[in-house]
Amino acid sequence: MPFDDLKLMRDEIDVLILCGGSRSDLPEQTPALAEVFNVVDSYDNHAKIPEHFEAVNAAAELGNKVAIISTGWDPGLFSLNRMFGEAILPIGETYTFWGKGLSQGHSDALRRVSGVKAGVQYTIPSEEAIAKIRAGESPKLSTKEKHKRECFVVLDEDANPESVRQEIVSMPDYFEPYETKVIFISEEDLERDHSGMPHGGFVIRAGETSPGVKQIIEYRLALASNPEFTASVLVAYARAAHRLALRQDFGAKTVYDVAPGLLSSKSAAELRSGLL
Amino acid sequence: MPFDDLKLMRDEIDVLILCGGSRSDLPEQTPALAEVFNVVDSYDNHAKIPEHFEAVNAAAELGNKVAIISTGWDPGLFSLNRMFGEAILPIGETYTFWGKGLSQGHSDALRRVSGVKAGVQYTIPSEEAIAKIRAGESPKLSTKEKHKRECFVVLDEDANPESVRQEIVSMPDYFEPYETKVIFISEEDLERDHSGMPHGGFVIRAGETSPGVKQIIEYRLALASNPEFTASVLVAYARAAHRLALRQDFGAKTVYDVAPGLLSSKSAAELRSGLL
Repeated sequence: MPFDDLKLMRDEIDVLILCGGSRSDLPEQTPALAEVFNVVDSYDNHAKIPEHFEAVNAAAELGNKVAIISTGWDPGLFSLNRMFGEAILPIGETYTFWGKGLSQGHSDALRRVSGVKAGVQYTIPSEEAIAKIRAGESPKLSTKEKHKRECFVVLDEDANPESVRQEIVSMPDYFEPYETKVIFISEEDLERDHSGMPHGGFVIRAGETSPGVKQIIEYRLALASNPEFTASVLVAYARAAHRLALRQDFGAKTVYDVAPGLLSSKSAAELRSGLL
Repeated sequence: MPFDDLKLMRDEIDVLILCGGSRSDLPEQTPALAEVFNVVDSYDNHAKIPEHFEAVNAAAELGNKVAIISTGWDPGLFSLNRMFGEAILPIGETYTFWGKGLSQGHSDALRRVSGVKAGVQYTIPSEEAIAKIRAGESPKLSTKEKHKRECFVVLDEDANPESVRQEIVSMPDYFEPYETKVIFISEEDLERDHSGMPHGGFVIRAGETSPGVKQIIEYRLALASNPEFTASVLVAYARAAHRLALRQDFGAKTVYDVAPGLLSSKSAAELRSGLL
């Protein structure tokens, strides 16, 4: 729908849920729409969130609208858990693990390798690393020490498996820094076993409240469908956006600014009696 | 410190952190103090939270103060996770498990029974129930089917064991609904074997976003010291209480009403750039 037609519906739409990509859609769409509508987005370029926030906030304040940005699970639920962990256990380490899950960016990189007909890449958290953290060892770990990569690849007919494997595992940034396994499969197997979009991961805060007294907070998602789960988080935050607008609490917000109860379809009194 | 002396310090104290018991201390102390001070408490008698909230809210509104009640981890962090699970995955089941761990509230209740000289209570999750959920069965389970209670009790010299046991196992809310075992031990055994205060547990939301698409959110705490962790949560919420008071957002609040960012020692801009 053209933007001008959409604007005609400004009184009928409570909240717009923006589902565009973070690379080029949302940096334009969210500020443009936040002046006219309450909006929720899932902008996920962590490095540029402050810039996005400023642009969206200016628009939302101008239009007296609410814009909740960067919701979903990371950024989003994982961000909340990183923050709660730090606020409650100031002495400690926070670990974020992703997976097991399908990575779009790495799958794309994989498919660009010559000799690869089709393929998907899974990011897999290191069980050894997680075990150390749960045991209270608080190890220092880089991203590459926390994750492994698994590539399921369908070869072109004339491709040489060993040279394809070599090209994948030596690809800088994407695969070279990681322990990467390449598994060749048939097109039928790819279709049957790898067309879902599972994802998930862990945020673990391992802290101490006095010397030697270990306290561990662990948040885990195991998602059969990453896009369906992300959409579900956006819908919950859309509920909050509407309520904030009714309170005239305008401007850009992140998950840190939104009182959790606003996400629920229940009233504050129902939450106190039923869930607290 | 007598209440009248404490009142003299009303301008020097930003927030009072109330650490009394839920059975008889907090129902009196929190309303009395919330009229004069910003307060945080850990009132944990779930069944009576609405009543406590009303009493505290009336006092806090009268005094233009902020009172965050029922913080800690359950009620508190677990309550938040129950709510997030429901709001994000409306089709599903929520499971809360506690332990194995020592419960402060229940030990406190136990020690008020006449004839009890000392004692501790452990909450024990049912391994069978956990196994079913992990296997994806989404069973219907009541709280009492998921947990057992074990009480280690030192008797007063002249106490009648059977009447003490009877009074414990029939205590409403605390013990009556559960399979409760009462074990009488010596003071020396209590000291040697039961002076740590570990606790923990987890909240699992097992839901579906479309038929057969399973999404699981799991929140786990593994605590070497329950009281030190609970205190840490109270301190984080004290930070929020102070900030809410500065905004003149007075009255009683629960974890559902407090924007998460208010718990952090970081500013909103720092949270957006560093943790989101």
